[in-house]
Amino acid sequence: MLRFDIITVLPGLLESPFAHSILHRAQKKGLTEIYVHNLRDYSTNKHKSIDDYPYGGGSGMVMMLEPFALCIEKLKAERNYDEVIFMTPDGVTLNQQTANKISGAANIMILCGHYKGIDQRIRDLYVTSEMSIGDYVLSGGELPAAILVDAVVRLIPGVLSDETSALSDSFQGELLDAPVYTRPADWNGHTVPDILLSGNTPEIEKWRFEQAMERTKTRRPDLLE
Amino acid sequence: MLRFDIITVLPGLLESPFAHSILHRAQKKGLTEIYVHNLRDYSTNKHKSIDDYPYGGGSGMVMMLEPFALCIEKLKAERNYDEVIFMTPDGVTLNQQTANKISGAANIMILCGHYKGIDQRIRDLYVTSEMSIGDYVLSGGELPAAILVDAVVRLIPGVLSDETSALSDSFQGELLDAPVYTRPADWNGHTVPDILLSGNTPEIEKWRFEQAMERTKTRRPDLLE
Repeated sequence: MLRFDIITVLPGLLESPFAHSILHRAQKKGLTEIYVHNLRDYSTNKHKSIDDYPYGGGSGMVMMLEPFALCIEKLKAERNYDEVIFMTPDGVTLNQQTANKISGAANIMILCGHYKGIDQRIRDLYVTSEMSIGDYVLSGGELPAAILVDAVVRLIPGVLSDETSALSDSFQGELLDAPVYTRPADWNGHTVPDILLSGNTPEIEKWRFEQAMERTKTRRPDLLE
Repeated sequence: MLRFDIITVLPGLLESPFAHSILHRAQKKGLTEIYVHNLRDYSTNKHKSIDDYPYGGGSGMVMMLEPFALCIEKLKAERNYDEVIFMTPDGVTLNQQTANKISGAANIMILCGHYKGIDQRIRDLYVTSEMSIGDYVLSGGELPAAILVDAVVRLIPGVLSDETSALSDSFQGELLDAPVYTRPADWNGHTVPDILLSGNTPEIEKWRFEQAMERTKTRRPDLLE
């Protein structure tokens, strides 16, 4: 059972992504637990603030060390964490191999940054892995945390109804997926390739391999290197 | 004013991400409009189904052409779209340059895939841009759509309270951000670098540049090439 503890200043933002689809079903089946902690509950001042001006000047606010430290220390006293992950655009870019690895863990803590960033000492003292979901800047770490959880949870055995589905996905092999088609076979003259209607499974497999190879060569030659 | 129309089989999943933080404020300020369309409303059969088995066999379900086609045609009859974007792991990887470009558009349509994929004819007939948020597989295109909207909306002038913030982010320049610190200056013996407390702005700027350069060299040398 893989447990996630997510620390955020915007717990409400994560409500609907974890309440639908595969993440919802995986929790109902007892295959994962996802806890969202409100950073503001760990504020040490009466205004419940969690950010302050950056030392040395400059624009933007910086998330303070103490609320994170209090929440992290409390959770670490309760169980051991395989990783304390900070979602940040300057981290190591998430890929399928990393998602596979994390899916075998027991307890994962995820810190969501906001504003101009978090006090560097949190990163130095607590974070074991800094992770980015891609080369673009977002409002905060909440959606990246949801992405990470989604990428990982679907790999847990029993989560997907058809276990072969996760293994035949793009990026699990070395090729992108071949095109897929379903009914109707003819829509306003736009037809499905004949081969897929032939019932000749070996030829269909060959066609799919060729299409996957062609698509990979055109779109992502780096995957073939 | 930038309008997004998102077509999805899971409209509820997108509720909370668009109801918080910067995306919420940007909508309240009238700087963006985000409409989420339930694909099931465009189903052509009485069971309201939107997927079917793949032609040629194999695991997983394929999203049918007709519901997407009906919804897309309806929206296109109402206004012109700069792009019809399909979120898919085999698309072109989103980066900051693409987000910048889209932030200047007027109307963007986003299609969210699910299950084993969508009927290839939707991609061939309607989609102008296929986009991935990174090399990992997710349960569906909803979270990637939210990521794209978030990356783009924060770039619209007036959305961020401090307009300089978006420009000084990682990836807008060529360097990752320097470390940031805020109060307290000493936390259990873990102190802030002296230079940031010196008040010597030129030296602070020099330190930040060096730190940013060092972090970029260590973590993302590809950004310096």
